[in-house]
This record gives sequence, C-alpha cells and structure tokens, in this order.
Amino acid sequence: MSRPTVKESHVDVLIIGAGPSGVMGANALIQAGVNVPEGVMAGQADGLQPRTLEIMHSYDPTMTETTMTETLLTKGATLRKTTFYTPSATGGIEKTFTSSISISPNARWNFGLIYRQGAIEGLFRKAMAEKGLRVKHDTVPTAMELVQNSSDLQDPKAYVSKASGVTLKNLVSGEVEIVHAKFVLGSDGAHSWVRKTLGIDVEGDTTDAIWGVLDFVPDTDYPDFRMHTFAQSHDGTIMFIPREGDLLRLYIQQKADSDIIDPATGRADKDRTSPEKILAQTQKILKPYRMEIKDGEVDWWTVYVIGQRVATKYSINERAFIAGDACHTHSPKAGQGMNAGMGDTHNLAWKMVYVLRGWSPLSILETYESERRKFAQDLIEFDKRWSKLVSDKRSTGSNPEGVTPEQFIGAFKSVGGFVSGIGIRYAPSTLVNASHQVVAANLIVGERVLPQVFIRVASAEPVHIHDLLPAETRFKILVFAGDLSVHDDRTKLQTLANELNKAENFLRRYGRVEVGKWEVFDVISFTSAKQDTVNLFEIPEFFRPHWTKALLDDEEVQGQSGGGGYAKYGIDLHAGAIVVVRPDGYIGTMAPLDGVAFLNSYFAGFLL
Amino acid sequence: MSRPTVKESHVDVLIIGAGPSGVMGANALIQAGVNVPEGVMAGQADGLQPRTLEIMHSYDPTMTETTMTETLLTKGATLRKTTFYTPSATGGIEKTFTSSISISPNARWNFGLIYRQGAIEGLFRKAMAEKGLRVKHDTVPTAMELVQNSSDLQDPKAYVSKASGVTLKNLVSGEVEIVHAKFVLGSDGAHSWVRKTLGIDVEGDTTDAIWGVLDFVPDTDYPDFRMHTFAQSHDGTIMFIPREGDLLRLYIQQKADSDIIDPATGRADKDRTSPEKILAQTQKILKPYRMEIKDGEVDWWTVYVIGQRVATKYSINERAFIAGDACHTHSPKAGQGMNAGMGDTHNLAWKMVYVLRGWSPLSILETYESERRKFAQDLIEFDKRWSKLVSDKRSTGSNPEGVTPEQFIGAFKSVGGFVSGIGIRYAPSTLVNASHQVVAANLIVGERVLPQVFIRVASAEPVHIHDLLPAETRFKILVFAGDLSVHDDRTKLQTLANELNKAENFLRRYGRVEVGKWEVFDVISFTSAKQDTVNLFEIPEFFRPHWTKALLDDEEVQGQSGGGGYAKYGIDLHAGAIVVVRPDGYIGTMAPLDGVAFLNSYFAGFLL
Repeated sequence: MSRPTVKESHVDVLIIGAGPSGVMGANALIQAGVNVPEGVMAGQADGLQPRTLEIMHSYDPTMTETTMTETLLTKGATLRKTTFYTPSATGGIEKTFTSSISISPNARWNFGLIYRQGAIEGLFRKAMAEKGLRVKHDTVPTAMELVQNSSDLQDPKAYVSKASGVTLKNLVSGEVEIVHAKFVLGSDGAHSWVRKTLGIDVEGDTTDAIWGVLDFVPDTDYPDFRMHTFAQSHDGTIMFIPREGDLLRLYIQQKADSDIIDPATGRADKDRTSPEKILAQTQKILKPYRMEIKDGEVDWWTVYVIGQRVATKYSINERAFIAGDACHTHSPKAGQGMNAGMGDTHNLAWKMVYVLRGWSPLSILETYESERRKFAQDLIEFDKRWSKLVSDKRSTGSNPEGVTPEQFIGAFKSVGGFVSGIGIRYAPSTLVNASHQVVAANLIVGERVLPQVFIRVASAEPVHIHDLLPAETRFKILVFAGDLSVHDDRTKLQTLANELNKAENFLRRYGRVEVGKWEVFDVISFTSAKQDTVNLFEIPEFFRPHWTKALLDDEEVQGQSGGGGYAKYGIDLHAGAIVVVRPDGYIGTMAPLDGVAFLNSYFAGFLL
Repeated sequence: MSRPTVKESHVDVLIIGAGPSGVMGANALIQAGVNVPEGVMAGQADGLQPRTLEIMHSYDPTMTETTMTETLLTKGATLRKTTFYTPSATGGIEKTFTSSISISPNARWNFGLIYRQGAIEGLFRKAMAEKGLRVKHDTVPTAMELVQNSSDLQDPKAYVSKASGVTLKNLVSGEVEIVHAKFVLGSDGAHSWVRKTLGIDVEGDTTDAIWGVLDFVPDTDYPDFRMHTFAQSHDGTIMFIPREGDLLRLYIQQKADSDIIDPATGRADKDRTSPEKILAQTQKILKPYRMEIKDGEVDWWTVYVIGQRVATKYSINERAFIAGDACHTHSPKAGQGMNAGMGDTHNLAWKMVYVLRGWSPLSILETYESERRKFAQDLIEFDKRWSKLVSDKRSTGSNPEGVTPEQFIGAFKSVGGFVSGIGIRYAPSTLVNASHQVVAANLIVGERVLPQVFIRVASAEPVHIHDLLPAETRFKILVFAGDLSVHDDRTKLQTLANELNKAENFLRRYGRVEVGKWEVFDVISFTSAKQDTVNLFEIPEFFRPHWTKALLDDEEVQGQSGGGGYAKYGIDLHAGAIVVVRPDGYIGTMAPLDGVAFLNSYFAGFLL
C-alpha cells in the first residue's frame, strides 16, 4: 500500500487568516505580483475611519476606477454627528449636547463610515479574484516550525518553514497540504494560532467591562437612532452605531455584577444571557424613549469582555509576522476595530514586496514592528482614557463633581486626529527622515499627505493629490518646482533635471529601467505658477514624460476646488521643495530642490 | 414540402436601432419592466453635455450605485477650458484667448465629458443585460406596415403593426422573424429606415460645409492639445476634442472648392481623400506648431457634409416614433451629437410606460413631439448661428471688420445654457403648468431642478436633490414644508397631510397602492428649519413613511455643502411650496401648500 500523496506547494507569502487585516495584506501583495497561495479562512467589526477609507482608495486599480471607495461611500451608512444623552433628573436619559463626529478636519472624507465587515472583506476578495486569488475556507493550519539556520534566515529567497513546511488541513475533506513559504503572516485574530505557535506573548489586562452587542432594525421614538450617540443613564451606557440600510447596532454596557461571566473560564458566556435580556436592559437605560426590535428579528448579537493587550513582538526574525487582532485588542468605544489591523498589513505589504523583489534588505522589515507596535501601544492608552471618560458619571444636580458637557466635548474634539487615523505619525527611522522638515513646514514627515487639489497644466483638469499616490509600490517624488513663469525658477528646475538625470544619483541608481518609466519611482511636478502663465512645453522635458505628470497650483476654472496648495503645505512659492512619499502614502522625507545628495543618502539607507 | 416555420413574437415596444438614443430608450423601458425584444443593431459621437450626464445619472439603479456616471467621470476626458487661435500676421495661427468651457453655471457637473460612443452604449447595454436584454446584431428590418383601424389605433393594448408584423432579417444566418409590437421606435440614424418606411419627410438643407475627422495620438508642440480649442487660420478652421487616454479628435474644415464631394451623389466620398491629405491640411492650418500622428497610427477617420434638418413629424398616430438622428441632424461644432438623441428617448420612454401600464391615455404621447421637435428646431437655429460665428473671420490688422475676441467670447459665454442642455425648457402643455410659478420663483416650471444639497433630519447626512429624483417612473412630490421649528408652520403641514390623505385627492386617487408606498408618486419633504431645531418625530407621520424621506435646508456639519436651498429656489421660508417633478426630472408644476385642488386638476389632465 502506498501512502496517499500529500500536495506540496512553494509560495512567497503564506497568509493565515482572511479577516480585514488578512485580505488587506493579501490584496496589496497580489496587486504587486507576489505569489500568495489561496488564503486560510478564520467577525463583526463595521466602522471605517477616514484614514482607512483613504488607504482603501489608494488600492483602487489605477485610481481611476473608484470601485471600492465608491461602493463604501454609496452603500455604507455615514456618521456625521455624535449626540450625548445623560441621566435625567426624573430617571432615564435626556439629551445633553450634539457635536460633529470627532475626526480630523484634514480628512479627505469627513465622516465615519459603517459597512459590515463581511462586505468590506468582500470588496478585497473581489479585487483579488480579478487577479486569480480566492480565499480558501474550512482550512486550518495544524503545524509550523521555522528554520533556525542563520544563512537561510538571512536569504529572502529561502523558504523559512522547516522541511516539513506549514501543514494545512481542510476540515471538510480532511485533505492535508504542505506549504513552503518565504514569509508567513498570521492575521488570525485575537486568539491567533500563529502567535501562539511562534511563542509570542501578549502584555496587558482583561478589563472588567462586559459589553453586549445587538444588531436589529429598530422601532423607536428615540430621535437620534440614525446618529452616532452615547446614552448614559444610572442603569448603564449604550453606544449607537447606525448601519447600512435600516440596521442599528447597539453596544450595551453590562453591569459589573452581571452573571454573564463563566467563573470557570473568566470569559463571557452567551448562554448566560439572551437578546431579550439585553433588550430589556436597553429599554431601562433609554427611558423615557421606546425601543423595540422591528418584527422581533435580531440580525446578530453577542456579549464579550474587553481585553486591552499588545503582543510583545510582531515578528520572528523578520520572516514570520503577526498583524491585526493577533497583535492588539481593545474596546469598541473608540471605533478602531478593524482599522488598526488594516493599517498593520498596509504598512507591512510593500516592505515585503521590496524584499522579495530584491530591492531592499530584510532589515527594512524591522520598521513594521517599530512603526505599528508603537501605534498599538498608543491605541491602548487612548482606549483606556477614552473608555473611562465615556463611562464616567456626568455632572448633574446630584453629582456636581461629574464630567461637565464642556469638559466632555473638549476631550471628544481633541481625540479626532487619533480616532480617525489621520494623525498617525511614524517616528524617525531609515524610512522616516525629518532633517529638512522646514522646506514644507505643514506637511509632516512621518504623516500622510494633506488633501489638496492641483490642476493639470495641459488639460486644466483638477486632480486630488491622493489620486496621484496609489499604493502600487512606487515611491512618489513630488517636485514642488517653484514658479515656472519666472526665469530664475525655470533655470533652477532645469538644474535639478540635469542632476536627477546623472547616473550616480538616486533616480537612475535605484530606479530600475529607463528614464520616465522608473519601476521604483514616480516623478510628479507641481509649479506654483497660475493657469495661462505657463506652457507645458516650457517645463523641462525631464518633468513631462507624459502630459499628466505636470501640475500647477491654482483654482480650477469654475473656482470650486484647488488653489493655495503651496501655502497649505508651507512651501515657498519660489524655493520649492522635493517631497518623498512612501508607497503606503506616508511622507518619508523632504529636501530642498538642490538636495539631491541628501536624497541619495536617504535611499541608500534601504534600497539595494 | 412544408414551408419553414418563421419565428413570431409579441412585444410591447420594438426598438429599431441601438445607437445612443436607442439604448437610452431601451434601458429606460426595460428598467420599468416593459417587454422590449432584443434590439436591432445599426457611429462615432463622443461628447456628453452636462445635462446628459445628469440624465444618465438618473438611471443609475437606486441612485446609490453610481456605476454609469462614475465610469464616465473617471474614465472619460473632461473639457474644462476652450482656447481660441486666430490667423497670425506671419501666417498660421496665434493664441487669442482662453475661456472656461461654455456651460451653464447651474450644471451639477461643470465640464464637457468625452468618452467614445461605443463605450457609452456599452454602459447601457451592461445595465440592460442585468435585466436580461441583449442587443441583437446583424439584424435589419425589411417590412413594416401599421394598422389603420381606428379602434386598434386607440387601444394601447392592440398590436399596431398589421397582421404581417414587422419583419426582421438576420443578415448572417438569413433567418427571418415577425415581431408584433404595440409601439415601434425607430432610432436608426440619419438615414433612418423607419422614418422612410413611415413616410415622414425631413425639412432643411445640406450645408456647403465639409468636415474631415481624424482620431489619433498626437506628437505635437501645440500647447493646448488637451483643451477644447478652435484654431482658425487663413487655410481653414480646426476644432480639437481631447479624448479618453491620449487620443485626440480633430474636426478639420475642408475647403469649399474641395473635390471630396462626389458630383453624382452630392455626398462626401472617403475614397477622394485620405488621412494623409487631411493631416497635411491640418499641419498647414496649425503653423507654426508641429502636429504629427504618433507611430503613424490613425484610430479612426471620416469626411462628411453637414446637413441641418428636422423631421416634419416625430410619430404616426402616437404608435410609431422616431428619435435621435432619425429626427434631426446638425454640425459637430456645438457638441450636441448624441446628447439630443438621448434626450429624445429619455423624454419618450416614461410616457410610453404610463400608457402601457394603463395609467395615462395615448394623448400623453403627443407631448413627445411637441417638446422634442421644438428643441430640435431651436438646435438647428443655434447651430447655424454658432457655426457661422466659429467660421467667421476674426478681427485682425488686415480685417478690422472681423469678429473681435470680445464679441466672440461674449457670444461663446451666452450659449452655455443651450449647449450644455441645462437650459432646456419645455413649453406649457398638459404636463407643464406654470400657473403657480411664483411659489418657487427660481425653479422654472418646464426646466430641470437646480442642483442643491439638503440634509437628512434623522442622520444629518447631506444628499444631492438629484439623487432623490431617479428616473424610475414616479412623479416626485417635493413638499417644501416651511419651518417646522415654528408652531404655525407645523400646523399648516399637518393640514396638508390631512388633505393629501383624503381619498378624493390626487395622491390616493391616482397613486395606486397604500399610503407611503405609492406606485405613481414619491413624497419627500424639506423643512427650512435648521439642524438641532427639529426632531424627526415632530414631523407629521404622513411625511416620514421612512426616515430618509424627511430633509432640512442647512449646511452639513463640516460646512462643506448644503444650506440656502430655499433662497436658491426662491421659496419663502414659512409659506413653503409643493413642487412636482416629472419622472424625467423636469418640473411639471408647482403649487402653494394649500394648493391640493390645483394639483388634482393638473394630474387629472393626464392620469387615469
């Protein structure tokens, strides 16, 4: 008798877990041509913060088909305002105040967006399916061991799982498959098998906060059921998240003395409560308002205890990684959910691509942990402060020591940058160098590029700068060229063109392939000259390999957008600046127009 | 021997010709559930005017998936400016002036949009394919005769083609099919077989203007090759239309003494010229600029003589119709091309649907000819004046009597409303009644609704009013309800709700099915009250069958859109108004809030 043959395969990256972080990473890699096998399937998150929308938009093919973002913007529910209800003197709740939802004023899309997690994953799966990749369901990993041999560890072309590979088992058919991978990524949730198998610990605590979650179509007279709202009575706190269609999600804080916790496991036990019990509690909190479940149909519900934890490491030898909930867990109140996890794999994917292509050394991958673990720690700190604030008693007649509406609204407004993801700033590293921050004082090195509309010189078409920064693995070299209607500025730009054209400088040294069609770079110029004062053919030929690459800073012809970009970015109208944007949309560095030598050394830090 | 059986079928509407007017009509009918057979296939138009974009948007399913408009906006070329070049003193041309492209300031999309005709038709075909309808190629009609029996003619359920039906023949397989149709629509182009078979004449002239058309990717130093531009030298006039991707279309006026005309037929003969000859002429006109065809590849080209003609009738007995180029032809200079034809079938389709459903008498179809033939006549008049202006000599040193730039730009700016389609105003008829124009002085009865953003009361989401006016065959009853934060205004609105709820008034009389789910009407309310001064549940229940139906007039929470809608529309903040919008987006009538009796008589004019 012969043993059945076991299927074996060799891949660049094996991703275990196809939740939001997993599909974000898988899509980013497959769009870049990386060999990713069919995924392994592992939720109920729902809120997309403004920065996550921007990131998803940056993966829309060529940025001219806005499939993913358009679907989200037209089908999702948008959150515009937050309303707060506090305990009323007569029992129950009363409206205290209303605010615009807390986000950064700099967001391209100024609102929260709610769309169910499965549908968001579906958008990525659809994009991946167009490249021939499908998610494999019903399959779990059963064994994995990494090589310890240091020469293999240091060779990005070596397969790092030991001779036995990673063993995957299909739970339905019982089939077993051995996958040999150069890199392994575990995005398999809070109870991550990959994390445990790699022996990575988590730090932090389980809180004593227990939350119930109820999704349903409401029948109510609570006037703000289509707003983001916090309702706090003496019987507990509820957060409202209106969802796509007519669905409403309620997060209902359970009493600390609740018997929902299973004393044996310390975990919340669904069998110890029911939607009816949670609804009864909801009705008590929301008095004098009525809240019923339309047709009695509950769409989904759960109860859980909040953990606030971060993994101690995000990688083993830069060959096996974890991302998303496998790295960090926190409460739902700050609306971070899947956003943090998607940000993780967005950060990681292009770096893996650079290593796999032989463009960067393995060391570039160290910045994944340094950039993303720091963010997760900040997130947990924020979550602790914010959860406390939301749960703290409000100032009332009987409790004058409580938080006043003014204090609360002040705190609420101040968190927008963090909550929205817009305020994320990566610290200095080989990839982030702020030496010349002064040349574009308001574009912060380590942050993403401020939204702004510029005008194409040749066609007068307005273009959002984010649409020039797709996540297609190239560094964008944004040349703010000064005023090309002025002779001296034109001369300076020609000098820069001559410099950039030299074989020893970074563009030709690291750019790969011929002038104007760099694989590693995309050069785009922006003059401060106004429309009709500059002619496309007066711009040095180097900066117009195609007519779409030359832009100017002016209002579009109907005066509805554009203008003032140099001022917004803090760039001198004549001195100009070179701004380097990483493939993930974050500003890597900047330099003056005569700063090519500085840029050479910046790129030498991580390009081969 | 038995004769081969001939396939026979019975349909509601047989559409002959699947160009832009044909697919617009077919899509409108099939979306409304009308039985349309697979179409009969018959271009090279390319420009979409702002109003046509608005119309196409109104057919996007549910207005939340913006498939068609998004594809156009992201893939098409947009025209923002028009530049004018006139004869220079040294021969050739020189730039005279630049203007924003001539469109109405009221357009929702403030630019011209260029996308090839085949792709635009493809968008409709894709929408139709989702409903199971495909265009049949290689099939031509060979015989058709209409019944003359007046009782059949007056019965919309009768098949109007005689017992022999309309005979269709497949040119490839030779198969013959007999189609029995209740209505026939011929959208089969300038040389329409349907028009000739129906015996409808055309009025007007063939002009002496001959134009060459050349589509190619340019290699040039003409700086405005990505703008809409007119270049006039002593050797002729050229119009530039930049297209999707890097393609450029040139319309090149041929010399009047050209030998391109075949003296036997009086029509332009492609065999008498060539792309090389047209390019040589182009190069002569554009001096001192260089213009070459990149890689020598011509994408498409033609020559033709311009006819300026209108059909004498648009229908036979309101049972057989013609539309598009079958009804009217004109020059390319005003950029009307397919826009006029798409406007025809957009106007016709919903009226056919109303008759087929038994909601309206056949007489409603008379307004198709009265509304659209008047427009075509205006278009020809406009085309004559405009073509002359473009071709007239410019004022120069040697020709001080010519048109000055100031005169030209003045004329150019003044035509925007017409060219864009935004300014179309249908004259009074059973469908258009301006008796109460005063209640919303700036919304013109017979025109489309001015763009404006309002805010949903329940969710604070901004909504473009056009997105509330989809072309899904319902009349929209827009109730501008006054200020619902004021007691007297709330009382007035409750009185209106009580009136509308009465069985003898138009909503329940003609609306079909129960309250809040009218088949014929959609009732949407807009209060002038500001956010946070009005509560959803204070609005009479009649006006909130669903929370999305109640809006208010205020800025959205970030101050980026909305506000001032009542003022823009010329509606008093307290008196309010009822505005009735036809299924095609045109304002049918308006009335004060106590004007239900007037509306009863308006709808009695064409609803059964």
